[in-house]
Amino acid sequence: MAEKIPTRKEDYSKWYNELVMQADLAQHSEVKGCMVIKPYGYAIWEKMRDQLDIRFKETGHQNAYFPLLIPKSYLSKEAAHVEGFAKECAVVTHYRLKSENGGVVVDPDAKLEEELIIRPTSETIIWNTYKGWIQSYRDLPLLINQWANVVRWEMRTRLFLRTAEFLWQEGHTAHSTAQEAIEETERMLDVYAEFAENFMAMPVIKGRKSESERFAGAIDTLCIEALMQDGKALQAGTSHFLGQNFAKAFDVKFATKEGNTEYVWATSWGVSTRLMGALIMTHSDDKGLRVPPKLAPIHAVIVPIYKGLEQLEVIREKVLPLVKALKAKGIVAKFDDDDSKRSGWKFAEYELKGVPVRLAIGPKDLENGTVEIARRDTSEKSTVAFEGVENTIEQLLEDIQTNMFNQALEFRNGHMTEVDDYETFKKLLDEKTGFFSAHWDGTAETEELIKTETKATIRCIPFDGPTEPGVCMVTGKPSERRVLFARAY
Amino acid sequence: MAEKIPTRKEDYSKWYNELVMQADLAQHSEVKGCMVIKPYGYAIWEKMRDQLDIRFKETGHQNAYFPLLIPKSYLSKEAAHVEGFAKECAVVTHYRLKSENGGVVVDPDAKLEEELIIRPTSETIIWNTYKGWIQSYRDLPLLINQWANVVRWEMRTRLFLRTAEFLWQEGHTAHSTAQEAIEETERMLDVYAEFAENFMAMPVIKGRKSESERFAGAIDTLCIEALMQDGKALQAGTSHFLGQNFAKAFDVKFATKEGNTEYVWATSWGVSTRLMGALIMTHSDDKGLRVPPKLAPIHAVIVPIYKGLEQLEVIREKVLPLVKALKAKGIVAKFDDDDSKRSGWKFAEYELKGVPVRLAIGPKDLENGTVEIARRDTSEKSTVAFEGVENTIEQLLEDIQTNMFNQALEFRNGHMTEVDDYETFKKLLDEKTGFFSAHWDGTAETEELIKTETKATIRCIPFDGPTEPGVCMVTGKPSERRVLFARAY
Repeated sequence: MAEKIPTRKEDYSKWYNELVMQADLAQHSEVKGCMVIKPYGYAIWEKMRDQLDIRFKETGHQNAYFPLLIPKSYLSKEAAHVEGFAKECAVVTHYRLKSENGGVVVDPDAKLEEELIIRPTSETIIWNTYKGWIQSYRDLPLLINQWANVVRWEMRTRLFLRTAEFLWQEGHTAHSTAQEAIEETERMLDVYAEFAENFMAMPVIKGRKSESERFAGAIDTLCIEALMQDGKALQAGTSHFLGQNFAKAFDVKFATKEGNTEYVWATSWGVSTRLMGALIMTHSDDKGLRVPPKLAPIHAVIVPIYKGLEQLEVIREKVLPLVKALKAKGIVAKFDDDDSKRSGWKFAEYELKGVPVRLAIGPKDLENGTVEIARRDTSEKSTVAFEGVENTIEQLLEDIQTNMFNQALEFRNGHMTEVDDYETFKKLLDEKTGFFSAHWDGTAETEELIKTETKATIRCIPFDGPTEPGVCMVTGKPSERRVLFARAY
Repeated sequence: MAEKIPTRKEDYSKWYNELVMQADLAQHSEVKGCMVIKPYGYAIWEKMRDQLDIRFKETGHQNAYFPLLIPKSYLSKEAAHVEGFAKECAVVTHYRLKSENGGVVVDPDAKLEEELIIRPTSETIIWNTYKGWIQSYRDLPLLINQWANVVRWEMRTRLFLRTAEFLWQEGHTAHSTAQEAIEETERMLDVYAEFAENFMAMPVIKGRKSESERFAGAIDTLCIEALMQDGKALQAGTSHFLGQNFAKAFDVKFATKEGNTEYVWATSWGVSTRLMGALIMTHSDDKGLRVPPKLAPIHAVIVPIYKGLEQLEVIREKVLPLVKALKAKGIVAKFDDDDSKRSGWKFAEYELKGVPVRLAIGPKDLENGTVEIARRDTSEKSTVAFEGVENTIEQLLEDIQTNMFNQALEFRNGHMTEVDDYETFKKLLDEKTGFFSAHWDGTAETEELIKTETKATIRCIPFDGPTEPGVCMVTGKPSERRVLFARAY
């Protein structure tokens, strides 16, 4: 039997792990750091993927696919990139096994001349390919996205949040001007933010990373930052302006309209299965997952309350047309007629799985033409007329989506603190948690000091928010503007 | 500039390679054996994937995701499986690089205790996981599919047909009875066949593999076989009844309704980006690709014939509402108003890319209220009324889909030869090519002899077709029934 899931207060970390496993989202595999994404979890990820993909295509991008394996030498071509990356990678050194003593061993004769790296990200292999695709300004912009798996060897892993292998999308675009690339970087950040807020019901703060937190090889890294229920921040998506760094490293030039030759300007941007972790930690409660309706694999579950199969049959006849009517509205309803499970067990199970709406219908309801309807977000229950309940459900799903966003927004705003001295900062970081808007002198040294002493990092220099100058809370030196600090995943 | 694509007669193999590259479907990467799937090629693959995915879900399957990396020891757990597989694999031995002399080297201190294999297929890791998912008959059937990349180290590669890394789906199901698993194996073969015929417009022969051609670890391998235009067969999909082999290897048992404990019955089934190769070689001609409308990223291209931008503007005003009207019908039309390309160039380009319908509209058409419409499958052109042309196009796309299937079927049926003696078989194999329906004595020895002498293999023991007994064309020994031979990809 599964262990009891602790409450968030009792043990937040264990609450998260047990919830992910018991709600059938994912589990650890026996391969260190690699997870199995279970069908229910994958169904939510698929909805995220499909919605993002629609938005990528609407903004002019096309999907493509580049190799999983990257020659080791590619990684050293962009100096800043290899400095920040390239260290914790899975390295392929051989290409054949052979049988020996009833088992298999690596064939020492099948050693690769040059080792191959499983992509930790694909800038290098993609820019090596773009060299052949881009000659003239007419080939630009090149707007490509890839859905793929990547591997970054992580020693300490957590389901969805930090795994050796994860699924993601990586956009890689090429432009003829810096301005156009910068606009693309911003556009895709907006796409991520819109998706996070309207689909994941997760409020995010858009901003720019400090130099220390920038992607290896980027000129500028934009990000969306969300706040989890334990008061820690989570970087939910990044969009990088890469300048001409990769174009120079891989010698990708284009003929301009005017007949000159210039290096191409680049962006890359990505979100990953980490969003699943963000979704879970933004919305779930001690009873289990809460899935926003727009990402829910099942929108409504209908549980029959009955004695004997004859009564079940009467309920089924009443319910099946409703399931059909909901389907016509794009609402997925499941009639759970499993006779081997008690209704109490079912209630708990669908709460655990975060199904937004639960209907219960029993003999009294049949008599009265009613049905009990419960919403997962507030746990409110009410008895309503069965007739036309499909419209009630449709409206309720919209309300739940909005309410979940508002709840998360309220929590986030309640954990946004403006602070001016370092002692208060340290105290509130422990006691109140959340985001802290504070002045910082702009140096990597002070940033590092704060990180070492408090484990808080600069999450971003937010696009919105106070921009008046001040003095650094640590050094007292001049600060251009407040930035956002938090402890983070 | 790109090389001229030879005709199929001149050099079939080069025709294929050049077509794949020049029609922007795929290209070789610098990583040996790995391809880049370009946006236009990926768009076709996405349509295949989406259609298959709909069918998998309609038949009760759910998607999930399992790790890319498999511990080496797993591969030796199922003896027959490792015998047939497991040899040409990418082996991960290290998990870290380090900087050295301005480059990167593999860190010798970061050697894995047990090597990891990049999945060549996922039976082992999945059945290792199913052990935790299956306890009782109530957990069955378990109907799971995975969309993933896999790596099989291939020395001689061809774009789409045989690449070290390829994309595929692999279904892995678990059942409580052999009968149910066999039915699943057959059901998924039917799904593949229906998809191949109705979407790819590619006729296939359903059948069973001989023992020698079976999947390593399977009790029975079913397949769909298609015929390419050079008279060689191509295995387009397989569906395996795995019996209890993997359940025994990974100790996956379940409690039956009656309270006993039994090993689970299994199936697996897959199709891959190889289908892209099949699509290309079934339909394309010397002018380029021909994409069946149901898989075409662009259904119709509209090329303006004009002198001066003013005329172009008049045409645009007429055409844009048509593009919109087509979109409302689910038809993707592209108005190619690129002023830097001549219309002749555009005609050739869209022929190369296999866009099913091409419209051309010029000043005369504007005067007469007409438009020229050309179909890619037959090259027929006609001038029709512009008014209501969206309906003409809709009907035409249906006709093209049907016609392409019929053309392929006619070709296939014209290359289906019943043969009774080995000399004739060898002669016609060279001269006529295609499928040969012949008697075979049922032994692996004779099968191997035929393969060695002629390079023809038993493609399948077809479900349909003559079943009367006879004598083997090679040995004269009794034969239960005719089987299908062909040279194959």
